[in-house]
Amino acid sequence: MMQDHVFYDCATAPSPRRARMLLVEKSLKVPTEQIDLRKGEQLGDAFRAINPRCTVPALKLPDGTVLGDNASIARYIEEIRPDPPLMGRSPVEKAIIAEWNAIAEFEGLLAMAEIVRNSLPGLKGRALTGPKNYQQIPELAERGRARIEQFFETLDRRLAEHVYLGGDAFSVADITAFVAVEFAGWVKLAPSENQQSLLAWRKALAERPSAHA
Amino acid sequence: MMQDHVFYDCATAPSPRRARMLLVEKSLKVPTEQIDLRKGEQLGDAFRAINPRCTVPALKLPDGTVLGDNASIARYIEEIRPDPPLMGRSPVEKAIIAEWNAIAEFEGLLAMAEIVRNSLPGLKGRALTGPKNYQQIPELAERGRARIEQFFETLDRRLAEHVYLGGDAFSVADITAFVAVEFAGWVKLAPSENQQSLLAWRKALAERPSAHA
Repeated sequence: MMQDHVFYDCATAPSPRRARMLLVEKSLKVPTEQIDLRKGEQLGDAFRAINPRCTVPALKLPDGTVLGDNASIARYIEEIRPDPPLMGRSPVEKAIIAEWNAIAEFEGLLAMAEIVRNSLPGLKGRALTGPKNYQQIPELAERGRARIEQFFETLDRRLAEHVYLGGDAFSVADITAFVAVEFAGWVKLAPSENQQSLLAWRKALAERPSAHA
Repeated sequence: MMQDHVFYDCATAPSPRRARMLLVEKSLKVPTEQIDLRKGEQLGDAFRAINPRCTVPALKLPDGTVLGDNASIARYIEEIRPDPPLMGRSPVEKAIIAEWNAIAEFEGLLAMAEIVRNSLPGLKGRALTGPKNYQQIPELAERGRARIEQFFETLDRRLAEHVYLGGDAFSVADITAFVAVEFAGWVKLAPSENQQSLLAWRKALAERPSAHA
């Protein structure tokens, strides 16, 4: 289907998982290259020439343009393959999905990155993605744990009133939040038993084929 | 034009400035309420009932829905008032604008927020926006300064090759980056004299009527 594109992935990392799930939900297959983040392949000359930000996911288009993050990849895919719509139908639904996607990024994924990158010994000196090295700040990892607890509460309250984060339709906001909730398992953080709405949503998401991409 | 909407603003703050600039670029006038962030009005019961995230900008729609961040407000405005397009025309242009908007948010505005919220005495205990209090982490303010220097370099390199961040058309990515560059002035950070492309772009942006909104 998209034989003339190249998807740069890392099968074990949360960030490219968002793009992988999106491609499955859109029934798109793209030739894929694995970039080994554990070996630092993203910082090597070969990948740096493809995406100077040294991050995955990235998507090379037929004209050679490289999209270097989830924001651009999701927008591009939604435009070239509008069905099923994953970024909303009406203006208000599109806006609400954009908002919940941003909440999941900032309060979920970013807080998780703060925990992992500022505490794991293997990420010493790599507290932020990208070409430049930054030292770990242990207090940031601690703060991240408090933020994730708050994030779970936010999701649970929203999902008590709506089937999906954007309302009644599955969207990119659910993908982003699901990846963040799953990522939390890396540091043994999980929704509590009384967060029933969040747990039910998580179970439903885990049963979609895209969750196994 | 949008008499049935309400825009919640704070004239002195960087984040709602993005929405203000967008409204001017779209030639839209919206009844506006000022929320006094310095007095903590965003944390009071009245505003909390409007936006539980306790942040501005927010936009109340005719049906009572409240959009509570720049992501949703920009998407909504682009949908109901498509001209001039500020989030791209072709699929690739839309994607590239989304990517540069995300770069400006994460590497620019977020790094600036890290500096200001983790160093200003008046923001003690308010290291993050939102209803919950978080203590300042001075190392994060320091790291933010290094990130902003890097952000200026990133912008200058991009603008050496393109008139605007998204390519040849002005977009929300320029608004976001411009607000971040202006925000940097709060802590006496500014592009250096040899960042000529960035300085020229900044000058052109500052001459648009929206820069004075």
